[in-house]
Amino acid sequence: MKLKEIKVMQNILNVNDQIAETIRTDMKSKGIFYINLMSSPGSGKTKLLEMTAERLGKNMFVIEGDIQTTLDAERLAKAGVGVYQINTGPFGGDCHLEASWILSALKEVSLDNISYLFVENIGNLVCPAEFDVGSHLNAVVLSVTEGEDKPLKYPLAFRNSQLCVISKTDLLPYLDVNIDRIKTNILKVNPQIKVINLSAETGVGMQEWFEILINKFEV
Amino acid sequence: MKLKEIKVMQNILNVNDQIAETIRTDMKSKGIFYINLMSSPGSGKTKLLEMTAERLGKNMFVIEGDIQTTLDAERLAKAGVGVYQINTGPFGGDCHLEASWILSALKEVSLDNISYLFVENIGNLVCPAEFDVGSHLNAVVLSVTEGEDKPLKYPLAFRNSQLCVISKTDLLPYLDVNIDRIKTNILKVNPQIKVINLSAETGVGMQEWFEILINKFEV
Repeated sequence: MKLKEIKVMQNILNVNDQIAETIRTDMKSKGIFYINLMSSPGSGKTKLLEMTAERLGKNMFVIEGDIQTTLDAERLAKAGVGVYQINTGPFGGDCHLEASWILSALKEVSLDNISYLFVENIGNLVCPAEFDVGSHLNAVVLSVTEGEDKPLKYPLAFRNSQLCVISKTDLLPYLDVNIDRIKTNILKVNPQIKVINLSAETGVGMQEWFEILINKFEV
Repeated sequence: MKLKEIKVMQNILNVNDQIAETIRTDMKSKGIFYINLMSSPGSGKTKLLEMTAERLGKNMFVIEGDIQTTLDAERLAKAGVGVYQINTGPFGGDCHLEASWILSALKEVSLDNISYLFVENIGNLVCPAEFDVGSHLNAVVLSVTEGEDKPLKYPLAFRNSQLCVISKTDLLPYLDVNIDRIKTNILKVNPQIKVINLSAETGVGMQEWFEILINKFEV
């Protein structure tokens, strides 16, 4: 009984990985750089995308994952960005996005003249990291307000990302948190990950973020 | 095939609910008030428990849920509190706690002379809310740094809680966040929930928190 359940789970993951690979290849052939943003709720993913829209404008498209509401999608639409909303369900709903849902979304939208595709994953530092959505870059956003130990406690999101954006650094003077210790903990679980410090409030780090996008950073 | 999967899921949930009910009754008969703390990563659950330990001391016991590490358990042990650690797994691991794991933990610890049992659930605003762990009070902690819209985006955690602790209110002067709008959004998804504002830094709201514990607040 137990074994059978595990077998089903592996099948689901294998199908997901196959679809993810198809999406990744397809986006690459179209010259679209595809970034999957993951984080806890409220770490600043939408804010980062709003700031990104100021520079990339109509050159970017966002697939927005939420359990409920279209609040983030509305914020991005207001910023002039093309947005497609995936709501995972009205009661609890799924806690992550899967490649097949991205594939379905992509069938309904036109990405002509788009160079950057973002997935804003569901606010959850645990489950989204388990599912490849076919992106070229997985970026985990970690707010300084979440404390120093989060990479150690939720390692998978950091292991499965190539970039970590430490956000809300403007709040550091008001917190009992050391950003060097955050960075040390990130590198402990993934020595290969690139880490940037960013404040969407002050603009610190935005240039570095844009360079990563413009150079189509890939590991 | 699809239907069969759903049937299995319902069975799991039913078994969980039965075990939860057993734990709830057992704790009540022992005169132990049992609180389940849920939140996003880094909202201040452990800090709240450390502050609570200053008052309740050896009168409380904590079952600590984490995917990896014993960091929070170590902090609480240092605060003089009895702690039992549940780690849900070295690779990704489960994103929530279930009643059966609490039951197993309770079989290994002595709660003699304990009046308060806390579960510090895994830092995740999505999945833990789906699983009754047999508590008398579900309390969701929401940091002001997470923004105003989180209750609307993650309603189940707020619907399935009887208390919401809005934490880190000392940071409000540095954030573009209105605490009244946070509270309005909480009450929109659950008009019956009790809401308190709290800062573990300044101590604001701690008295109200202690009164809830001392009065063994139940809905």
